[in-house]
Amino acid sequence: MRYIFGSDIGGTTVKLGLFDEEGNLLEKWEIPTNKENKGESVPGDIADAINKKIEERKIDRADVIGLGIGVPGPIKSDGTVLMCANLGWGIFNVNERFSKLLGFPARAANDANVAALGEMWRGGGKGCNSIVMVTLGTGVGGGVIVDGRILAGEHGAAGEIGHMRVNDDETRLCGCGGHGHLEQYASATGIAYLATEAAKKNPGSKLASFEKITAKDVFDCAKEGDETALGVIDEMSRILCLALSHVAAAVDPECFVIGGGVSKAGQILIDSLKKHYGPNLLNALQETDFRLATLGNDAGIYGCARMVLDVR
Amino acid sequence: MRYIFGSDIGGTTVKLGLFDEEGNLLEKWEIPTNKENKGESVPGDIADAINKKIEERKIDRADVIGLGIGVPGPIKSDGTVLMCANLGWGIFNVNERFSKLLGFPARAANDANVAALGEMWRGGGKGCNSIVMVTLGTGVGGGVIVDGRILAGEHGAAGEIGHMRVNDDETRLCGCGGHGHLEQYASATGIAYLATEAAKKNPGSKLASFEKITAKDVFDCAKEGDETALGVIDEMSRILCLALSHVAAAVDPECFVIGGGVSKAGQILIDSLKKHYGPNLLNALQETDFRLATLGNDAGIYGCARMVLDVR
Repeated sequence: MRYIFGSDIGGTTVKLGLFDEEGNLLEKWEIPTNKENKGESVPGDIADAINKKIEERKIDRADVIGLGIGVPGPIKSDGTVLMCANLGWGIFNVNERFSKLLGFPARAANDANVAALGEMWRGGGKGCNSIVMVTLGTGVGGGVIVDGRILAGEHGAAGEIGHMRVNDDETRLCGCGGHGHLEQYASATGIAYLATEAAKKNPGSKLASFEKITAKDVFDCAKEGDETALGVIDEMSRILCLALSHVAAAVDPECFVIGGGVSKAGQILIDSLKKHYGPNLLNALQETDFRLATLGNDAGIYGCARMVLDVR
Repeated sequence: MRYIFGSDIGGTTVKLGLFDEEGNLLEKWEIPTNKENKGESVPGDIADAINKKIEERKIDRADVIGLGIGVPGPIKSDGTVLMCANLGWGIFNVNERFSKLLGFPARAANDANVAALGEMWRGGGKGCNSIVMVTLGTGVGGGVIVDGRILAGEHGAAGEIGHMRVNDDETRLCGCGGHGHLEQYASATGIAYLATEAAKKNPGSKLASFEKITAKDVFDCAKEGDETALGVIDEMSRILCLALSHVAAAVDPECFVIGGGVSKAGQILIDSLKKHYGPNLLNALQETDFRLATLGNDAGIYGCARMVLDVR
């Protein structure tokens, strides 16, 4: 039996997974992310955790195919991390560092891209070869998979769709310092903002009864038929679909896979996106499917495993 | 010595090229495109022209590596043409049809994508592996090259950037039936429209003295310092760069290569695009270069040759 390790590095924890070579997840666990000293102990901590698991399970090291790594920052296709504000890392080659530490091949990519690969392989995008993953959480992230491979981009920034400028007239600042960016409307925070504004204008809406409206409140009220909440979802969908139509003009994917906390809204979100997507587009592109992500926080470790299988 | 043929099928003529295996263009010629009977004679006509050349040059068929074909319509990465309004073709596999006719490997792709590949290989994008080609002509076309390969897209429509919706408020209709599309502002026709509107508001501009303003007039006047013409180029650049910033968020290319008739304006266009590009973008993406295409109408046959070399 042969094995693959996946390690998805987050700002608070590192998610680890052990897979067999068919891609079945045998075990998953977590270790804390130690951000002290510019995150310099992170590679060693991960190597220790993996070595411990190898020992515990009495795995022959020769049977380990490799390690996949998801990194929270832009990273080039050769494994060079360029900037990793979340961890404090400088510029170095992550593949080389981990291979040296562990003695078997290691391959790293951006965490959003790795999650996209995982969803394509074993999640919402199963059966597809080319997807765009859209993560609607606190911010908006994305990952582009073409012909089964991650599109990393020259500056490691392909799929960074959250900061597409979709509204020139916006005066509020985005977290990045720009304004009118996609994540100001389509993230959980963005939806809450749109809803708060809408509630002010529609005091009869149930939304107006919340002290602090969350994205979940908006979808819950919409499911109950609240017109104002439905209007907010329409607005958010219109803006998101305009941005996704631009992405489709560039890469023409088989489907969009929608993940992140906001995607817990489920089918109501998918239906709204399908409704707003077509009118922006050439006929050829209107058939693109929308699906929900299914792997949640495990998408990253699945994608890590797939990366290792791809280069084997 | 070994040979490659390239054939770039246009609505009026088919451009043909004979290359050696280093990719040097040995000879180029044209035949008319016969669009009668839904273009059914086109494959045979091309095969005849190639067979004639093989005979004329006394080439051993065993020394022909293959034929690359540029098709004016969406085509999948396996060579299936989906719709080819320009020629009248139905759905069939172009690779198979031509291989059967000629007895050596054939590989087809969309003409804009093939031109992009040619520019990456031997033209304005030389030295790069990942480019986005932007063709500013009567319309606006595009092609995306990632890691040296054409990104075809699921519906063969990747890089079809001309119909990105960049202005919701536009009332004029685009040729495709939509409105507010990129090519309504950044094509030669679009620039002429912007200039005509601007000239009405600025009767003192030299632009107001033309009976019918062309894109070339706009750039000529701008080079002479005409403020109104400079304003038109600013407006066109602002809109084009917004669209290209969206494309960059998806694919993060090394550079944009600008071709088509409008690109004859030269450095003034590149400078204007560089000026308007950065502010739309995350820092990581602001370094993306802008270059002029250099191969003109030969870009397609060069791209055809490169496709054949890639699959050898």
